Order: sequence, then C-alpha cells, then structure tokens
Amino acid sequence: MKTADRILAAAEQLFAERGYEATSLGEIADQVGIRPQAIYNHFDSKWQLYEAVLERLLGPFLRFLDDALATPPSAARGADSLAAEISFHAANPNLARLVQHAALAGGSQLKLLIERWYRPFFQRALLLAPESNAIVKADPALLPWLVTGMHGLVLGYATLAPLHAELLGIDPFSEQAIARQSQFLRELLRVLDGAQS
Amino acid sequence: MKTADRILAAAEQLFAERGYEATSLGEIADQVGIRPQAIYNHFDSKWQLYEAVLERLLGPFLRFLDDALATPPSAARGADSLAAEISFHAANPNLARLVQHAALAGGSQLKLLIERWYRPFFQRALLLAPESNAIVKADPALLPWLVTGMHGLVLGYATLAPLHAELLGIDPFSEQAIARQSQFLRELLRVLDGAQS
Repeated sequence: MKTADRILAAAEQLFAERGYEATSLGEIADQVGIRPQAIYNHFDSKWQLYEAVLERLLGPFLRFLDDALATPPSAARGADSLAAEISFHAANPNLARLVQHAALAGGSQLKLLIERWYRPFFQRALLLAPESNAIVKADPALLPWLVTGMHGLVLGYATLAPLHAELLGIDPFSEQAIARQSQFLRELLRVLDGAQS
Repeated sequence: MKTADRILAAAEQLFAERGYEATSLGEIADQVGIRPQAIYNHFDSKWQLYEAVLERLLGPFLRFLDDALATPPSAARGADSLAAEISFHAANPNLARLVQHAALAGGSQLKLLIERWYRPFFQRALLLAPESNAIVKADPALLPWLVTGMHGLVLGYATLAPLHAELLGIDPFSEQAIARQSQFLRELLRVLDGAQS
C-alpha cells in the first residue's frame, strides 16, 4: 500500500475510535511507522486529512445512492437500497462511528459532514422512502421521524456493536449476523409497506 | 445545589460531550468553580465519579423498567413502556450519549456499563417485547435484531440529535418533536403488532 493510503487507513481507524479532537498526528504516524513530519508530505493538516478520510468513505456511498435512485421507485427498491446500505456499513463500520463522533462533538466536524455529504444524502433518502409506508399514510407529518428513526437503527448497528455483541453473545460483523440484519430490515420494510395490502 | 451534586452535573455534561478519557478532573472543577483538589472531598477518583454519574442516570431507569414489568404483559404495555422510555431519554439525553461513548471507546467503561446496568436492562427489554410482534412471528431468530434495532433507534434520537436538527430544521428536544417521536413509536409498534389481526 502507498504511504498516503496507509496514513488514511490509520487516521480512519483512530478518528473512528476516539474522535477527531482526541487523535493526534503523532499517533497516526506511530501506527504507520513514519515520523509525524512525514505526514505533511501527503496532507497539509490534520483537518485536511480528516476531510480526505470522510471523502474516501462517503464518496462511494453517495455514488451508490445515486445508482439506487436511477431505478424506478418501488417498495422493492426501498428494501434493496436499505439492504445494500447495511452491507455497505457492515463493510465500512468506521463510517457510522465517524458520523456518530461528529454528531456528539458538534462544531466544525459536524458542519463539514452535513454540508458536503449529509444534506445530499438525506435528500436522496427522503426520495427513496416509499409513499405506501404505513406510518406516513397514518400521518404524513411523521416522515422526518421515520427517516431519522431508520437512520438511528442503521447507524446503531455499527456504533453500538460492541455493546450488543457482549449482551447477546453474537458477533454483529459475522457474515451470518449481517445476513440476519438484512433479513430483519427486509421484514421490517415488508411489514411497514404491507399494512395497506 | 450541594457541591457534590454540582460536581455530578458538570461531570455528566462533560463525559456526555467528550467521553470519559477526554475529560479531566481539572475541567470538571473549572465548570463547578472549585479547585481540582476539592473534588476529592466528595469522590475518591475520576473513575468513582464516572460510576456515580452512571448510577444517578441509570438507577431511576432500571426502577422504571421494574415498574413497567409489574403490570401484566400486553401490546399496550409494550407501547406504553417504549413511549415512557422516550420521555425518559428526552428528559435525560446525556444517558444515551454516555452509553454511545462507552460503546465506541470499549474497555473498562463498556464493561462497567454492561455488568452493572445493561445486562439486567436487556433482560427486562426482552421480556417486554410482545409475543405477537410480526417480525418475531415471521422468524423467531430475528428477536435479537429487533431488540438491538429498536435500541439503536431509541438511543439515536438523542445521540444523532444535532445532525438531525440541522438536516430537518427541527429541534428534536422541543415538546412538539418529542410528542411526534412518541407518536411515531406507537405507530411503529401498532404496525408491527397489528400485522397479525
């Protein structure tokens, strides 16, 4: 792996574990096995490195949502895109952790996350929500609570994984557990969408 | 307020914002307006202060779950206890933030949280899940994913609040927003429970 990629991987891991503020360039350099000064051959600052880490995680995610929106709307599309989102988070659990740290810390991290990525992401998520959803049908004013609720449910799978692993004796990142989570979400969407039929 | 209570309130706020490791006794003392040494008149260590903060938040929560379990099981009890849980978290948003920080940090914080509080809490939560739930009926093996999913949804309301507030232009801790969240959860449980009727 190139040095820049090794720096990005180490930074992603440390930012996900401790958050932006609690991570130093010295610790990142230690993980990579280079001198702290050598990071500046690749990134101008800790902040620019943080931006690059988010871009590497969220860029592919937004492109995936664009692809999902390119197919015609249907309940199946909603279920498929949510299942694909779960697989995406399962393969990149640090994404949810970085988002959660930014939400807890607030300030410029949260601002960057929202302006560059999350606003377009939520606009797409609202478009992907099926109109036939039983909760929205019961009261259209509940749509924001449905979307934020599903968002918490999906992110919580990664950010609360160590707690749930210990409580239930299940490794949430095993292949079988991820298959079950996809099945659970399909079942949940089926029930939410099937209440009309 | 007594000095010990003011120390607990300041510690809770800082632990919830930054996590245990990133918070120093000096910062807590600054918030209270006392010398750092004066904290030791009330607490033996930063760790004992952390335990006291968790006890103050989670003790009443476990007693509330005990009361909920004292009434006979029914779908209404499930809905009532979840709505009460939302009100509890809305009044004490730092609880969800502390749990989320512990899950992200792992180690002794997570261990303390699980052994002292979360294991009995999850045992009660599993008992409160109604047997008629459509997802569990479809496949009983999905029960752990239902419980952890609802847990992520409930906690995410507090831990992701600054992100959702910015994206949706809604203050999640306004009286109206909390009423909507209760309505959303009642609606969700109704759909999950009503699919059999």
